[in-house]
Amino acid sequence: MRHLLLTLLFPSLFWAQKVQQINNDSIFIRSVYDEALLRGKAYEDLRELCKNVGHRLTGSAEAAMAVKWSEEKMKSYGFDQVYLQAIKVPHWERGNTESAWYTDSDGALHKLHILALGGSISTNGLLNAPLIEFKTFESLKKAKRKDIEGKIVFINQEMDAAQIQTFKAYGGCYPIRGEGAIESSKLGAVGVIIRSLGMPEDDFPHTGSMKYDSTVSKIPAAAISTHDAETLSKEINKGKVKLYMELDCRLFPDADSYNVIAEMKGNKSNEIITFGGHLDSWDTGEGAHDDGAGVIHCLEALRILKTLKYEPVHTLRVVFFMNEENGNMGGKTYASWSKNNGEIQYAALESDRGGFAPRGFGVDGNSEQVNHLKSFESLFNTYDLDQWGKGGGGVDIGPLKDYFPSIPLYGFIPDSQRYFDFHHAPSDVFENVNKRELELGAAAISSFIYLIDTHPRD
Amino acid sequence: MRHLLLTLLFPSLFWAQKVQQINNDSIFIRSVYDEALLRGKAYEDLRELCKNVGHRLTGSAEAAMAVKWSEEKMKSYGFDQVYLQAIKVPHWERGNTESAWYTDSDGALHKLHILALGGSISTNGLLNAPLIEFKTFESLKKAKRKDIEGKIVFINQEMDAAQIQTFKAYGGCYPIRGEGAIESSKLGAVGVIIRSLGMPEDDFPHTGSMKYDSTVSKIPAAAISTHDAETLSKEINKGKVKLYMELDCRLFPDADSYNVIAEMKGNKSNEIITFGGHLDSWDTGEGAHDDGAGVIHCLEALRILKTLKYEPVHTLRVVFFMNEENGNMGGKTYASWSKNNGEIQYAALESDRGGFAPRGFGVDGNSEQVNHLKSFESLFNTYDLDQWGKGGGGVDIGPLKDYFPSIPLYGFIPDSQRYFDFHHAPSDVFENVNKRELELGAAAISSFIYLIDTHPRD
Repeated sequence: MRHLLLTLLFPSLFWAQKVQQINNDSIFIRSVYDEALLRGKAYEDLRELCKNVGHRLTGSAEAAMAVKWSEEKMKSYGFDQVYLQAIKVPHWERGNTESAWYTDSDGALHKLHILALGGSISTNGLLNAPLIEFKTFESLKKAKRKDIEGKIVFINQEMDAAQIQTFKAYGGCYPIRGEGAIESSKLGAVGVIIRSLGMPEDDFPHTGSMKYDSTVSKIPAAAISTHDAETLSKEINKGKVKLYMELDCRLFPDADSYNVIAEMKGNKSNEIITFGGHLDSWDTGEGAHDDGAGVIHCLEALRILKTLKYEPVHTLRVVFFMNEENGNMGGKTYASWSKNNGEIQYAALESDRGGFAPRGFGVDGNSEQVNHLKSFESLFNTYDLDQWGKGGGGVDIGPLKDYFPSIPLYGFIPDSQRYFDFHHAPSDVFENVNKRELELGAAAISSFIYLIDTHPRD
Repeated sequence: MRHLLLTLLFPSLFWAQKVQQINNDSIFIRSVYDEALLRGKAYEDLRELCKNVGHRLTGSAEAAMAVKWSEEKMKSYGFDQVYLQAIKVPHWERGNTESAWYTDSDGALHKLHILALGGSISTNGLLNAPLIEFKTFESLKKAKRKDIEGKIVFINQEMDAAQIQTFKAYGGCYPIRGEGAIESSKLGAVGVIIRSLGMPEDDFPHTGSMKYDSTVSKIPAAAISTHDAETLSKEINKGKVKLYMELDCRLFPDADSYNVIAEMKGNKSNEIITFGGHLDSWDTGEGAHDDGAGVIHCLEALRILKTLKYEPVHTLRVVFFMNEENGNMGGKTYASWSKNNGEIQYAALESDRGGFAPRGFGVDGNSEQVNHLKSFESLFNTYDLDQWGKGGGGVDIGPLKDYFPSIPLYGFIPDSQRYFDFHHAPSDVFENVNKRELELGAAAISSFIYLIDTHPRD
C-alpha cells in the first residue's frame, strides 16, 4: 500500500513540477518576445551602429569608433560590468584607388565593379595583362603554366543555386577566394580576379579574406560583381580581352584594438555563458547583416533579461568580438584569457548569419548536448522556430573548444536565403535589415540564453 | 512455417514498395527544385507582370492588359489548354485627385500620405472638418454621437506587433478598414481616416477593401501612413486639428473581365486539381507580393511539371483569378461554373501570402486530410519546409467548398514577417521580391501538386 502510494504520489509530483516549469518557461519567453517586439531597442541600436559608425574593418578609425560606441551603449543599459579586452590585430587598408576595366576584342572599354580581396597586395600602379578565364577552380588547378604565365586569371565559378542552404553554396566557393591567388601564382599569373561570392546576378562586388603562401610570389587579387563576370565571360568568348587594374592596398603594423564585453553576474559567477557576434566588418557597406545584426541581437538579448529583472544562474557575458573577418584575434585572445583567469566556460553562442527571420538553433556538441538542445523545441512551436539539431558554433567562439573541450557551442540559425545578396558587399546596409526579423532574432536568442542558463544539462 | 514466411515476406514487400515510392518522390522533388533554381522562369515572369503591366485593379485598363499578358504567357509554355473564363466585375476607380492635409493648433499645415480605401465615395470637392481620434475601434463604437457629429473620425489602432504571425495582427485590425466608415457614419461623422494596416512605421499608406451599409449614409474613407498617424496623434494631443481631404473616387457600371486558365490534362481528366492566386491587385505599387507572386508561383509550378514531362493523374489546372480584392467574382464564378460543368474538384491550393521564403503548407479540411498532408512533411526536411497542419485555403478557392463540400483546400505558407510592409501599399513592387525566395516557393508548390496528384487520399 505504501509502495503504491509512493509510485502514485511521486510521479504526479514529478509531473506537476515539470508542468510548472514548462508554464514558467512559456510565460517568461512570452515576456521576452513582448519586450523585443513592443519596446525593443535592437533596430535603433543597429541604425546607430550602421549610420553613425558605418563599416569598421579591424585596425581602421571606424573600428576604434565602433569600440567606443559599443562601450557607451552597453554602459547606458546599466549592466553589472562593462569592459574592454585589449588585443593586437592586423591592419590592412584597401587605399584610395581601386579601379579596373577591360578592353574587348574590338578595343572598346568596359569598366568593372571591383573590390580588392582583404589582404591583397597593391598593383604598384596600373597593372595590365591579357585575361584568361576558368569556369571552375578545379580547371585552374589542372591548367598548364604556359597558358597562364604573365596573364591575369579570372575564376568565374558560380555559387551553386541548387543548394537549399546558401551557406553550403558559399562553402563550395570559399576556397576560390581564399586560395585563388596562391593557385594562380603557382602557374605564373600576375594577378587574379574572381567572380564575387554573391548569390544574385547584380552589380555589387563582394570582398572577403584571402591568403598568400610563402612558397610563391604574392599577386594582387580582387572580386568583380556577378553581373560583370557574366558580361566579361561573353566578351572573352568573342575574342581576346585585356584587363587593366589598379589597387592601392597597404598592410600596416599590427594595431591595438579591443573586444567589448558586458556582463550580468550569475549566482555561479565564475561559470560563464558567452554569447556574441563580431563588431568588425569588411570595409564596404555598413556591416549591417555581417555582423551588426549579430552583436545587436546579443546586446538586446542581455538588455531584455536585465529589463525583466532576470536573476542568472551563471554569469551572462555578451562579447562583441573584434577581428573575425581577417585573423580572429578577438576570439583567440578571449578564449585563452578566460582559461588563464580560471573561469569555467559553461556554454557559448554566436550569431553571425545575419538578421533574418529566425529558424532555430544548432549545437556543435555531443549527443547529450544535442538532446538537451532539442528539449527546448516545443517551447518555440508558436514562435516559428523549427530547426533544432546538430550544427552551430561560429568563428569567434570556436577557439573556446581548444581550452574547454566539453563546451557546447551554439549557433543561432536565421533563414539563409537572402544572406549572400549582401555578404561583404556595398549592399550590406541598414536598409536591408527588416525590423521585425531583427527583433525576433533578439527575442529568440534572449529566450534561448534563459533556457540554457536555467535548465541544467545533466 | 508458411504463416511465418508470409509475415516475413509481405511486410518486406510492403516496405520495399514504400521505400521505392519515397525514393521516387525524393528524386522527383529534387528535379523540381533544380528546374526552379537553375532554369527557373518565375523571376523574369514576375518582372514582366510588374514592370510591363503594373498594378491591375479589377475593371481597369491594366487588369485587361494583365489578362492578355497572362494568356499569352501561358500559351508560350505550350500547356494542353489555355482559355479565358468570362466574369462580371465591379469597377471602382480612385480618380485623379487624392490629397489630404491638416492644420495643427498653431495653424501650420502638414501634408498626409493618403490612399482612399477601395470602394470609398468621393468627397465631392474639398471636405474639411475637425478631427477626432480614437485609439481603438472599440472605443469609437462606444463614443457619443454629440462628440462625433460633423467631424472626421481618425481611427489610430496599431497592428499588434507582439503577434508572431503577422496575419493574426492583420486580422485584429481588418474590421477597422471594412467597417470603419459604417461605425463612424452611425455616429454622424462626415468622413473617416484610418491608420494604415501596415506593420512598420513608414510613409506608405495601405489601401484595401471597405464596406458601406444601407442603413446609414456613405462617407468618404481613406488610410494614412503609420508614420503620419503617429505624428497626427501627437498634434491632436497638443490641440485642435482640422483635416482637409479631397478624394475623387468613382464607381462605374460592372465591367467584363476574365479568369485566365491553363491546364495539363490528367488521366482522370474530369477530376481537377485547381491551384492559383489572383491576377488583380490594388491600384498602387505593382501587386508584386499581392498577388503577382502567387499567380507566378502557380504558373511556374505547372511549367516545371510540364518541362519534367510529368504525366498527371488528375487534370492540373492553374487559375489566375480576377477580382479577389473587391468582390471575389472570379472565385465565385469559377466554383459554380465547375459544378455546372459536372467536374469533380479533387483538391485546390492557393498562394496569396506573398513571395517570401517557404515555411510549409496548411489544409482547410478534415482530420484525414490533415494527416494526408502531414505524410508529406518528411520529404521536405532538407528543403526547410516545416509547417504542416490545419489552416490554409484562400479567398479565391473558398467558394469551391460550397459546391464540393469534401474538397481539401490547401494553402501555401511562406514566412509572414515582411508581408505587411508591402501589402496594398506603393511599396509592393518587384524590387521587394527576392529571386530565390520566389523560386523556392514555386518549387515547393510544384512538388506539392505532384504529391497530392500521385498519393491517393484513401
